Amino acid sequence: MRYTVYLSGEIHTDWRDKIKAAVKAQNLPLDILTPNTDHDSSDDCGVSILGQEEKVFWKDHKAAKINSIRHTRAIERSDIVVVRFGDKYKQWNAAFDAGMAAALGKGLIVEHATDITHPLKEIDAAAMAVAENTEQVIQILEYLCRDY
Amino acid sequence: MRYTVYLSGEIHTDWRDKIKAAVKAQNLPLDILTPNTDHDSSDDCGVSILGQEEKVFWKDHKAAKINSIRHTRAIERSDIVVVRFGDKYKQWNAAFDAGMAAALGKGLIVEHATDITHPLKEIDAAAMAVAENTEQVIQILEYLCRDY
Amino acid sequence: MRYTVYLSGEIHTDWRDKIKAAVKAQNLPLDILTPNTDHDSSDDCGVSILGQEEKVFWKDHKAAKINSIRHTRAIERSDIVVVRFGDKYKQWNAAFDAGMAAALGKGLIVEHATDITHPLKEIDAAAMAVAENTEQVIQILEYLCRDY
Amino acid sequence: MRYTVYLSGEIHTDWRDKIKAAVKAQNLPLDILTPNTDHDSSDDCGVSILGQEEKVFWKDHKAAKINSIRHTRAIERSDIVVVRFGDKYKQWNAAFDAGMAAALGKGLIVEHATDITHPLKEIDAAAMAVAENTEQVIQILEYLCRDY
Amino acid sequence: MRYTVYLSGEIHTDWRDKIKAAVKAQNLPLDILTPNTDHDSSDDCGVSILGQEEKVFWKDHKAAKINSIRHTRAIERSDIVVVRFGDKYKQWNAAFDAGMAAALGKGLIVEHATDITHPLKEIDAAAMAVAENTEQVIQILEYLCRDY
Amino acid sequence: MRYTVYLSGEIHTDWRDKIKAAVKAQNLPLDILTPNTDHDSSDDCGVSILGQEEKVFWKDHKAAKINSIRHTRAIERSDIVVVRFGDKYKQWNAAFDAGMAAALGKGLIVEHATDITHPLKEIDAAAMAVAENTEQVIQILEYLCRDY
Amino acid sequence: MRYTVYLSGEIHTDWRDKIKAAVKAQNLPLDILTPNTDHDSSDDCGVSILGQEEKVFWKDHKAAKINSIRHTRAIERSDIVVVRFGDKYKQWNAAFDAGMAAALGKGLIVEHATDITHPLKEIDAAAMAVAENTEQVIQILEYLCRDY
Amino acid sequence: MRYTVYLSGEIHTDWRDKIKAAVKAQNLPLDILTPNTDHDSSDDCGVSILGQEEKVFWKDHKAAKINSIRHTRAIERSDIVVVRFGDKYKQWNAAFDAGMAAALGKGLIVEHATDITHPLKEIDAAAMAVAENTEQVIQILEYLCRDY
Repeated sequence: MRYTVYLSGEIHTDWRDKIKAAVKAQNLPLDILTPNTDHDSSDDCGVSILGQEEKVFWKDHKAAKINSIRHTRAIERSDIVVVRFGDKYKQWNAAFDAGMAAALGKGLIVEHATDITHPLKEIDAAAMAVAENTEQVIQILEYLCRDY
Repeated sequence: MRYTVYLSGEIHTDWRDKIKAAVKAQNLPLDILTPNTDHDSSDDCGVSILGQEEKVFWKDHKAAKINSIRHTRAIERSDIVVVRFGDKYKQWNAAFDAGMAAALGKGLIVEHATDITHPLKEIDAAAMAVAENTEQVIQILEYLCRDY
Repeated sequence: MRYTVYLSGEIHTDWRDKIKAAVKAQNLPLDILTPNTDHDSSDDCGVSILGQEEKVFWKDHKAAKINSIRHTRAIERSDIVVVRFGDKYKQWNAAFDAGMAAALGKGLIVEHATDITHPLKEIDAAAMAVAENTEQVIQILEYLCRDY
Repeated sequence: MRYTVYLSGEIHTDWRDKIKAAVKAQNLPLDILTPNTDHDSSDDCGVSILGQEEKVFWKDHKAAKINSIRHTRAIERSDIVVVRFGDKYKQWNAAFDAGMAAALGKGLIVEHATDITHPLKEIDAAAMAVAENTEQVIQILEYLCRDY
Repeated sequence: MRYTVYLSGEIHTDWRDKIKAAVKAQNLPLDILTPNTDHDSSDDCGVSILGQEEKVFWKDHKAAKINSIRHTRAIERSDIVVVRFGDKYKQWNAAFDAGMAAALGKGLIVEHATDITHPLKEIDAAAMAVAENTEQVIQILEYLCRDY
Repeated sequence: MRYTVYLSGEIHTDWRDKIKAAVKAQNLPLDILTPNTDHDSSDDCGVSILGQEEKVFWKDHKAAKINSIRHTRAIERSDIVVVRFGDKYKQWNAAFDAGMAAALGKGLIVEHATDITHPLKEIDAAAMAVAENTEQVIQILEYLCRDY
Repeated sequence: MRYTVYLSGEIHTDWRDKIKAAVKAQNLPLDILTPNTDHDSSDDCGVSILGQEEKVFWKDHKAAKINSIRHTRAIERSDIVVVRFGDKYKQWNAAFDAGMAAALGKGLIVEHATDITHPLKEIDAAAMAVAENTEQVIQILEYLCRDY
Repeated sequence: MRYTVYLSGEIHTDWRDKIKAAVKAQNLPLDILTPNTDHDSSDDCGVSILGQEEKVFWKDHKAAKINSIRHTRAIERSDIVVVRFGDKYKQWNAAFDAGMAAALGKGLIVEHATDITHPLKEIDAAAMAVAENTEQVIQILEYLCRDY
């Protein structure tokens, strides 16, 4: 069975590459969507395309709105949304994406280390699976793809 | 004009009381909904009602799911969702609520100090107003209630 | 916080009366909806109003369709759907109601004894709380109603 | 006319193979989706991927949630949902799937022996066809595919 | 249990009055909505308010569009839509209302004499009850209102 | 621009063939869906597949429900629904389909002779075009397909 | 029959007062919602509450977003949306409101002078009534409120 | 990442051709939809296909309704709706399309010169990007298409 999967959340490790490599190696019927994982262009797209801003707030605002076109479409289009929480940064955008996925009834898979279970309990509660590492996410995806 | 307003997010300061006091003092036509703001009962409701768990994960899970009945109903029923981010804790549940509110097309108002603008840019981008303090939130609510 | 609650499922014990009594005793802000719990009139409504049928299939069909007007409206209108599974009968209608409630994103609470956990796992997985007895259901409802 | 069909319910006989064979033999324009019909991996997927649980409840819970990603996607994506009730087991998951299909307005076809008509009357009432055997289901599918 | 009921269809007999009288006599918790049952004002409202038309098509068009504001709101707002087919006129508007009610998942009750069963089979198939006379409709409504 | 078009309504003249011929001759980017236009199999499908009925009502019921799987899917899947009213028969199913199409916000095109304008005014009011003959319908479809 | 009505569009004449006066004089069952009709506070609400902006674009942006909370809620909550186009200004916000109302399936009534029919044809085409003056709008509302 | 894009609004300059040329030159994964940009056939399609009208209002009405089949489908089907406002004409249809796109949660991009910022503030507030020229629109589209 084929799925469209959006890989949301943390962009500072190579977890998406691991999933893509598994998809390729195992020939899994998965269409992978991602956010812009290039940190600089993601932050600067608003002012670099639409013109500079003096206030940081509006610089961020213009970038975040342009990026939201991609994020919102990706979540709406997905069957499964995987959200990974790393050990750094605020990652409120990851939690925000999880909220959108939950409200839209998507199959939500959350990945995070066990030491942040308590602050993530509301998001875990909305998830269909809570993985501790990317290998588990890959195993779940592989399992869900099997044909019978 | 009358609105139902859900006050999501940070539960360690008295910002909800300020809004409720203003509603009362100014007789604003607002129906206020809140999460459980009693931290202990919120954390313990699962195991205290449905039985103990050895693993912290399942203790949190049972509590978070029960609380999600309230949160999800409150967001769905609201015209306006106010989400306040404080200066402590992970607050991923606040960002998660904001994501649900955005996906459901609610009138989202976000309150946070200016020093966390950058990590909140995706949520601010989905908001109809970004306030720096609760007084501004109250002014917006008062303004929206006026009849013409 | 006020909720509309539909009490679906098993109709051969007095569990609904216990909940209604608690609502009354504790003055809980709950609007309770129920199916027709009078077994005979529920089975016979089709033929007694719309005319006899020779085949049992059509007798059942006419009754079930009339009753579905009530059930479907009750589920759609509810914030919370409580489904109780007893120790007798097939109770496929209870599982069917749970499926409707899940698909519509309702706050699903399931009550059943622990010895039928395995065959109910798909329904429990969609529930926000799995209670072992009606007292627990009442405690959850009371907890969710509290104002802060 | 082409349809996507989800074959839900009983997994202990070869009824799905009969339908697939007919699709192949008659070259019917049907895309067939199924649940995991391998009983063991379906029961064990949660703990085998995400780690052991001491309590059976949580073992079942983790498996059922992972499987629900497949089931929910399959029902949402389908034009027609066929649910077969066999003569054994509780089969509450089959009734649950039927409830989801009904709430989402899918073309529901139910197959079951005539001796369980009475307890299935609510589900039959929501169905567009009630078949007594798989041959009838195949005939209906073939009939619906015809082009004019 | 309380319902909003829209009484659509035939406007040349007093069937609506019978239902209203029963509601009053039995104090049923039903909110009754009706179309404009005054034939002349219904046909003329467009040109009498918005100005004359030379072509009959546009006269009818203006009236039908104004009336659709009432009809569409009434159907959307209803729990139950009752559509009565009489023995005269084309009554395509009644069938059109039934189609809207079916598409919106309303509890559809159809009333008609048995001699027009065949041409009404598609509409009957979407109905939760097919009554032969208004007395049966009243009995169904009374039955659905009972509290347990 | 490509569209999916459902051709509903009258099945006793060759109007669908005219449209299909035009699609082929002009190579229009239209995917055409139709009901079962074979009158006998449409009427008999219920009893011929699922078993005889003594009452005509149930014979019709079983057929109409099976056919509704096709009709409902076709309307939901369509961008444009064309409904033709002929000069014979009750054609309530055509008006019912128009009601479903209107409720689902489809692009509704109605074709009928001018002498039945008055009884069709509610349906015409919901239509985006009211044609007097199939040639006009074809011209509209061709016009809508043009690329710019 | 009772309706909620949003009076959108032009704010420089007293047309809303005429409608409100008629509602009062005739005791019509209408709940009237309006935008902020105080031009200055509407333009300045963003900067006066949330802080000054150097760029006019952001000043307008903050005001328009706050006001959108009211507008969007009002349109969603309404049964009927009346949009009046006057003879001055760009009035793109009025057309924007009409687009939202149309997309949400509201009963749209448009009022404008006949000399701007051509540029308003797309909006008129989505309307259930096109009035030339406020008296006609009042007559339509009165007509729709009548009970039968 | 692939998107469907509807290019709404002004039809008197070659801005759509610029976007199409960029799509071709850069091989962007975009499916472009447009309105009828041939002004005469757009205005005349109603009367030329469905017959003459004496009143200009009905001539415009028939054309606008036929065109709405294309516009509504295009907006519903799009991921991104680009609306360009030029320096001439009323352009209420452009603002109407923007309202539909906003109500349906589409990724709205607005293009207009800076001197009309104030009257467009409500539409800009609903947009994810406000561009001053077509080159900026193209850059945004190119940016959103990048794969990571």
